[in-house]
Amino acid sequence: MRYLHTMVRVTNVEQSLAFYRDALGLQVLREFSSEQGRFTLIYLAAPGDEQAQIELTYNWDPEAYTGGRNFGHIAFAVDDIYAMCQRLQSHGVLINRPPRDGRMAFVRSPDQISVELLQKGTPLPPAEPWISMPNTGTW
Amino acid sequence: MRYLHTMVRVTNVEQSLAFYRDALGLQVLREFSSEQGRFTLIYLAAPGDEQAQIELTYNWDPEAYTGGRNFGHIAFAVDDIYAMCQRLQSHGVLINRPPRDGRMAFVRSPDQISVELLQKGTPLPPAEPWISMPNTGTW
Repeated sequence: MRYLHTMVRVTNVEQSLAFYRDALGLQVLREFSSEQGRFTLIYLAAPGDEQAQIELTYNWDPEAYTGGRNFGHIAFAVDDIYAMCQRLQSHGVLINRPPRDGRMAFVRSPDQISVELLQKGTPLPPAEPWISMPNTGTW
Repeated sequence: MRYLHTMVRVTNVEQSLAFYRDALGLQVLREFSSEQGRFTLIYLAAPGDEQAQIELTYNWDPEAYTGGRNFGHIAFAVDDIYAMCQRLQSHGVLINRPPRDGRMAFVRSPDQISVELLQKGTPLPPAEPWISMPNTGTW
């Protein structure tokens, strides 16, 4: 298991790059835009320390960030996402976004901080009970 | 420069450890309580990946976390905190908490995400213009 990134939502890509890249000196590692999803993701990290990253999420359709919505989530890579979700459930944690795709899950801390879990390497084959498990709430 | 931690405020230490430690499987690396400051800090990380950490801040005097106040900040260690703050200023970034102690500074992103900067190793000798620079706003 290892720490992947901290995701924050941003309202202006130029201003954000002027801050995170130009002022703070982080390096842009990669960028990804989805026409269909209407969002842009930009991953940055300190030069020479590319393991822990900052993920900027820019949603093309403006959104008002109240209630801490501009803080996104903390993310970990795990060896077995099903085992991790089972473990979380056995501790009474609700799986808000079950790993139906064998790849990604979201849960929340007791204080509603979103935690993303990503399968290390290639996704696992889809499996029950996850395939049939609906989303619950937001994350 | 390297990524240090993501800080989140928590309202209940037991519930938070049940989630981050027992359910998610992070390891507690260290814990620090201040009678005077009336707070407890708990640092956790994925086993075997202790570089990027989660810092839980528990304030003994309850506080209502609206407006994203339960997300704290992202933190970086830097080689020269004065050079970094100068660089940020030259990019028009306000130094909310100047490094008067040669050790710590806080700024905010354009979306008001708090960014903590910590001098790597021992603090630098206190120096102007930082010594005389007051705090601005909150962070």
